[in-house]
Amino acid sequence: MSTATPLPAYAAYEHFLVSSPALFVAHVEINRPRKLNAFSRPMWLEFGRIFTQLSADSDVRVVVLSGAGDRAFTSGLDVQAAAEDGALTTEEGKDVAKKAKEMRGHIEEFQECIGAVEKCEKPVICVLHGISIGLAIDISCCADIRICASNTRFAVKEVDIGLAADIGTLARLPKIVGSTSWVKDVCLTARDFSAQEAVSVGFVSQVHGSKEQAVQAAVAMAAALGEKSPVAVQGTKELLNYGRDHDVAESLRYTRVWNAAALQGKDFPQAIMSGLKKTKPRFEKL
Amino acid sequence: MSTATPLPAYAAYEHFLVSSPALFVAHVEINRPRKLNAFSRPMWLEFGRIFTQLSADSDVRVVVLSGAGDRAFTSGLDVQAAAEDGALTTEEGKDVAKKAKEMRGHIEEFQECIGAVEKCEKPVICVLHGISIGLAIDISCCADIRICASNTRFAVKEVDIGLAADIGTLARLPKIVGSTSWVKDVCLTARDFSAQEAVSVGFVSQVHGSKEQAVQAAVAMAAALGEKSPVAVQGTKELLNYGRDHDVAESLRYTRVWNAAALQGKDFPQAIMSGLKKTKPRFEKL
Amino acid sequence: MSTATPLPAYAAYEHFLVSSPALFVAHVEINRPRKLNAFSRPMWLEFGRIFTQLSADSDVRVVVLSGAGDRAFTSGLDVQAAAEDGALTTEEGKDVAKKAKEMRGHIEEFQECIGAVEKCEKPVICVLHGISIGLAIDISCCADIRICASNTRFAVKEVDIGLAADIGTLARLPKIVGSTSWVKDVCLTARDFSAQEAVSVGFVSQVHGSKEQAVQAAVAMAAALGEKSPVAVQGTKELLNYGRDHDVAESLRYTRVWNAAALQGKDFPQAIMSGLKKTKPRFEKL
Amino acid sequence: MSTATPLPAYAAYEHFLVSSPALFVAHVEINRPRKLNAFSRPMWLEFGRIFTQLSADSDVRVVVLSGAGDRAFTSGLDVQAAAEDGALTTEEGKDVAKKAKEMRGHIEEFQECIGAVEKCEKPVICVLHGISIGLAIDISCCADIRICASNTRFAVKEVDIGLAADIGTLARLPKIVGSTSWVKDVCLTARDFSAQEAVSVGFVSQVHGSKEQAVQAAVAMAAALGEKSPVAVQGTKELLNYGRDHDVAESLRYTRVWNAAALQGKDFPQAIMSGLKKTKPRFEKL
Amino acid sequence: MSTATPLPAYAAYEHFLVSSPALFVAHVEINRPRKLNAFSRPMWLEFGRIFTQLSADSDVRVVVLSGAGDRAFTSGLDVQAAAEDGALTTEEGKDVAKKAKEMRGHIEEFQECIGAVEKCEKPVICVLHGISIGLAIDISCCADIRICASNTRFAVKEVDIGLAADIGTLARLPKIVGSTSWVKDVCLTARDFSAQEAVSVGFVSQVHGSKEQAVQAAVAMAAALGEKSPVAVQGTKELLNYGRDHDVAESLRYTRVWNAAALQGKDFPQAIMSGLKKTKPRFEKL
Amino acid sequence: MSTATPLPAYAAYEHFLVSSPALFVAHVEINRPRKLNAFSRPMWLEFGRIFTQLSADSDVRVVVLSGAGDRAFTSGLDVQAAAEDGALTTEEGKDVAKKAKEMRGHIEEFQECIGAVEKCEKPVICVLHGISIGLAIDISCCADIRICASNTRFAVKEVDIGLAADIGTLARLPKIVGSTSWVKDVCLTARDFSAQEAVSVGFVSQVHGSKEQAVQAAVAMAAALGEKSPVAVQGTKELLNYGRDHDVAESLRYTRVWNAAALQGKDFPQAIMSGLKKTKPRFEKL
Repeated sequence: MSTATPLPAYAAYEHFLVSSPALFVAHVEINRPRKLNAFSRPMWLEFGRIFTQLSADSDVRVVVLSGAGDRAFTSGLDVQAAAEDGALTTEEGKDVAKKAKEMRGHIEEFQECIGAVEKCEKPVICVLHGISIGLAIDISCCADIRICASNTRFAVKEVDIGLAADIGTLARLPKIVGSTSWVKDVCLTARDFSAQEAVSVGFVSQVHGSKEQAVQAAVAMAAALGEKSPVAVQGTKELLNYGRDHDVAESLRYTRVWNAAALQGKDFPQAIMSGLKKTKPRFEKL
Repeated sequence: MSTATPLPAYAAYEHFLVSSPALFVAHVEINRPRKLNAFSRPMWLEFGRIFTQLSADSDVRVVVLSGAGDRAFTSGLDVQAAAEDGALTTEEGKDVAKKAKEMRGHIEEFQECIGAVEKCEKPVICVLHGISIGLAIDISCCADIRICASNTRFAVKEVDIGLAADIGTLARLPKIVGSTSWVKDVCLTARDFSAQEAVSVGFVSQVHGSKEQAVQAAVAMAAALGEKSPVAVQGTKELLNYGRDHDVAESLRYTRVWNAAALQGKDFPQAIMSGLKKTKPRFEKL
Repeated sequence: MSTATPLPAYAAYEHFLVSSPALFVAHVEINRPRKLNAFSRPMWLEFGRIFTQLSADSDVRVVVLSGAGDRAFTSGLDVQAAAEDGALTTEEGKDVAKKAKEMRGHIEEFQECIGAVEKCEKPVICVLHGISIGLAIDISCCADIRICASNTRFAVKEVDIGLAADIGTLARLPKIVGSTSWVKDVCLTARDFSAQEAVSVGFVSQVHGSKEQAVQAAVAMAAALGEKSPVAVQGTKELLNYGRDHDVAESLRYTRVWNAAALQGKDFPQAIMSGLKKTKPRFEKL
Repeated sequence: MSTATPLPAYAAYEHFLVSSPALFVAHVEINRPRKLNAFSRPMWLEFGRIFTQLSADSDVRVVVLSGAGDRAFTSGLDVQAAAEDGALTTEEGKDVAKKAKEMRGHIEEFQECIGAVEKCEKPVICVLHGISIGLAIDISCCADIRICASNTRFAVKEVDIGLAADIGTLARLPKIVGSTSWVKDVCLTARDFSAQEAVSVGFVSQVHGSKEQAVQAAVAMAAALGEKSPVAVQGTKELLNYGRDHDVAESLRYTRVWNAAALQGKDFPQAIMSGLKKTKPRFEKL
Repeated sequence: MSTATPLPAYAAYEHFLVSSPALFVAHVEINRPRKLNAFSRPMWLEFGRIFTQLSADSDVRVVVLSGAGDRAFTSGLDVQAAAEDGALTTEEGKDVAKKAKEMRGHIEEFQECIGAVEKCEKPVICVLHGISIGLAIDISCCADIRICASNTRFAVKEVDIGLAADIGTLARLPKIVGSTSWVKDVCLTARDFSAQEAVSVGFVSQVHGSKEQAVQAAVAMAAALGEKSPVAVQGTKELLNYGRDHDVAESLRYTRVWNAAALQGKDFPQAIMSGLKKTKPRFEKL
Repeated sequence: MSTATPLPAYAAYEHFLVSSPALFVAHVEINRPRKLNAFSRPMWLEFGRIFTQLSADSDVRVVVLSGAGDRAFTSGLDVQAAAEDGALTTEEGKDVAKKAKEMRGHIEEFQECIGAVEKCEKPVICVLHGISIGLAIDISCCADIRICASNTRFAVKEVDIGLAADIGTLARLPKIVGSTSWVKDVCLTARDFSAQEAVSVGFVSQVHGSKEQAVQAAVAMAAALGEKSPVAVQGTKELLNYGRDHDVAESLRYTRVWNAAALQGKDFPQAIMSGLKKTKPRFEKL
């Protein structure tokens, strides 16, 4: 993505590149390619801040997320860094209840940083490629649309490091993919699965020949979304996420209250009129 | 469907044809083919009344729903009529809170008319064909079984007219189709998708070569359902809809209370006995 | 499965064979092949007890479930036995409210026996083969992973015996398979569906050429799961089941509290260290 | 209430008097005093229609509900009429499942008519007096504020006619009154309780010496509410009802979406300005 | 209660006396008065079995629960016995995750034994007297109606033994008593509260001068309930418990399905006819 | 509270005094007495930060919250400051949908700042006194225990400034106080209510003669809580808040998982042993 313009408002982040490959589109790249884009705690704190900032940035209407380099989207948690931090070692004789409180706090912080992708009010298109295991699945489950390169190697790896995944995969995957039998298979066995398997179960919706092609496809989709009404696009994201978590009657009620304000904005009559007149609408920032 | 008998009890409806192509089966056709079966407000009010009446009509056990004519199931909202009604124009200076109250009311009325398909106690088989966009998706999401002709052109079109879909697609689609990545793709981009794509993600369960073949397949399926125990069929619809919206423990509890009455009816022993004796049971109206 | 060692602790069960084909793996076979493994009430009471015992047995980490014999996983309820028991006949003049109370109680007992598979804290891999109708679907919906032989004949048969399925299929199937249109099709029509159809909609995740091959594949998968950390595997089952029934925020909260204890165990550091040192970990019983 | 002006839009109702004792206030009186205001089916159908009409009538901002005559608010269901209708008699040999379907339909219709008080978007102040048993409790549980005359004789009477109350008391009373031990006492024993007991447990919030005084107090409160901002008053009713039925996080989310439109209306700045200038605001119809 | 007839079907229980002080009434007494009726594990296992048996026993329609002796309803957990059992001591070096699994299992078993009072289909009237702390609150929160002697000394004691109460008080008390400020006060401070305070906040609904008078009042209330329609009484308990845990729309739906069977029983017409004819109905066992 | 030690870690806050009147106790005072402790936006942002810091501060185990000065706890929103900020004025011609998005954001920020009291893991005792209207109710609804001075003047004032209260009162009050009739009365009428009325409906649990006495009582209660096991106290707060928002079965499940870690800490055996030996336990920081 070397030709994309870096976004100055995001230049200070250390572990991520944020550029703008198209109008209203931000491209976030996980930028630690020598370590297969593995995450340390400073990285996930920064990751959460970036997506919170993108959510509030009215110059950005769509986000593309990928890894820097050719080898990996991310290989997940940087286990070595975690071991050195002491995050993985239990101090001898530490009070179990006190340690449990600390751990709840740590997991919550981690969950909230990664969950910032889901809370981001703009659609996030996640491009998976190369090694995409462990935390890669947690992150991509928070995105709205997942596409991948054909060389992607996926795995819900946590069982193989002795834990039940706790950053979101087990909460979100059963609601993202139709086949529970498949979900339990990959979560319990921690086995690899391919791009082909991912698209056939519906985990991703497109497979492309290479990372470059996948990123190009994501940027093109993002550019198209960026030209649409932000009121319509952001409302659709909000209502689909609400729909996933509520029964139909609740969702219909929330939709009514949401659209009672949204439809009083200018995007709606403008889009209608453009449609009738066959002109191209331009929507204001939201 | 020219050979089907019109159902006299439904002859007064202006915008819909209701006939009986098989015993216990009603076929509802959206009948405004010159306007691509687009819906105006009088049409959706009538649509709601028809399905409420079908729900209570013990001569009807299954419903087939399609569009009249070859070109469209429905092209959705009749935008021009809506514009003339003033439904789309904001009066200058109107109080925002007052307008919001009106809009909540209008959306609720519209949701309830379309939702009458879901509330109808009999199975509804929806046959999509030709143009099937916008409201076509909202309506078909309320049906129990969706099949389509190979020429169907689907789209969740609302984002392109500047709004988040509010008549039910965003509430129901995430629960109807397994792949959330696909659902968000079609809802955010408003792009067309084909019959082939629809069947491969599970939105429809059959594709047929033409509208005629699809309607025939639907009528045949409906006729078969019409011969089964209405207590069993209607209970199954109710419990599957309940299952979609509740957790497993709740669903099992509701099922126990439901079947504690249903199993005391005559359909159950009669079906059992017919099975043991290899005879064909006849079930009474419910 | 003749070479598998019978598990002595389960030798007293009358209708089921329980053996151990691999370390930490129990294989349960429904053992009434002359009657197509059809279930009578004593059988489902025993079935519930077996899975409750397996759940608490720390020598067992994974369970494989299949039918004995070549013809059927199970043909479902033994209707003849039920008829002779009087379970299906309504006594003349019996008080409807009193009868309803009895039936609620009977259905609850039956639901709880079958549901013991879901409550079992260890993963259960269900191998479907031959006739697998009615109760076969209720049972397999409670398992974690479903695989089948290519000759399997599936059907949600209940509508054809005059009732809405009440032992769990209607509560669980909409959450197991992505396509609601397909779910309603098979539940309302009671039609047969094949192994191929089952895998394509995601009901099962593997099809094998024969029952033997399917059982071998299940045992191999089970043996692999048996070598993994039981804390990780059982936690993953618990959290995926919780995730199916709760919204994302609730699931993340429960996950934090769950893992705050689980991560203080020895499996986690041991798995991490084995990973770093490329050795094979051995996990203690849980 | 002889001096109140009858409201012409409600003159055609047969069983209820609707007058306007104060600006923006409607007073509904159950008007069958010779029969202790007992309800027959035509009455509850009319009752539902009145409250649906009041909900949509922008000339009405608050409703007072009482019984006509001195003896009763209502003595509940007109059992004799019900017996003559055949509603209470089971036809010999009628199919239990078919009868169950009919009864579900009848109870739902009855629940919806009475529940129209809760759904009415304007606050409803219920004045209980004299005999107030059975249906009187179901109705008053749907009102927002309950006050009573000191001579009121309350009872949740249904257990004494052989049924669990099914028109709403058992669903709403546990959420209206703090003491579950008291709720179960009066619901299980069907015993009478007095105005004094009702106020001490919080079922009513005021007791007055006579029906006249109670009605006067209700009208005075209604008149005061009628002068307040309808956006504020109706929003408060909606959000309190939502709060009763949802957890806190859900309620806060819905509140944000609701007020994002409501606060853009004119009532809010007008009320603020009136407050700062110490003038009396006048709010437009909503 | 020396004059009450022991119930032979319950004679084998070791730690509880079960007698019948009135027709259809069972009186359960916690019978370890020398130890202030403190509970050991064998006692709570037995307690669960008794209430499960009472729930299914059609000769029993109402249950009264009290402590034997003058000094205590129960002083709660027998801490000394628990210490000797090893239930309270952590084995050195035991794996935290393994221990956590055991403890979840123990707490669940304990919760289910005590919760058998709530699940019991018959109303349970709990008579508190003397020392009523810790587990006494958990138990009484499961009862339907609570009354007490004026000498009762209540306390939610768990904070003072270093734990958050886990057998049900914290789950149920906020739904039983109206004032959350009071609930948090007594749960956080573990302070004593008196019969007078208990009745004024609605935790109990009656206070009597002595244990004897309280038991007499409970038996009289139970005897009156025993003469009423069991269909009505048990339905009312079920629907009130359902109402506590569900929103209003859900409760109304469940109520319709429940009563569609219940009202087809004989109790309903019989009670109606007795009412019209002013005779005393006699209801059959349920 | 002049004799209390200021807590240095909280010295930088501008609008609040934070001191320590007793071991492990923090006392937060709203410190803008000349303006009746009215809140501007900088104040509520600071308020949120303070309670987030207190939640994580292991030197603090209990919090007391009151207003500085004699006249008011708080008079609520500083309307004049809000007017000057432009927060209350609608810019002419601003897009309604865009404005709605902004307002959702502002309300969410405000809700989260005030809600920090509820999220604070330590118990918060709120002392209300003098003017306690509008936001005073929102804030105190987030506290665990409410006590007040006899001169307190309470009001849910929002309806009188033209809006439905949106910072939490309408979400929490129906769950805090038993009588819904009273809740709707005070929320709809915006009328004043007295300390006496507040205690009689259970909104507060104690009334004291003066602010000083109320603060002394709060500090004494806080000091007592500060000496108890923090594992027990904080777990009790968490589980009671969970219990308010979930059904009983969910709460019992969460409780098991929570206590499976908490009971492995040292507080539990230490408290037990102290109880048996009649010594006073000392608990470590959590």
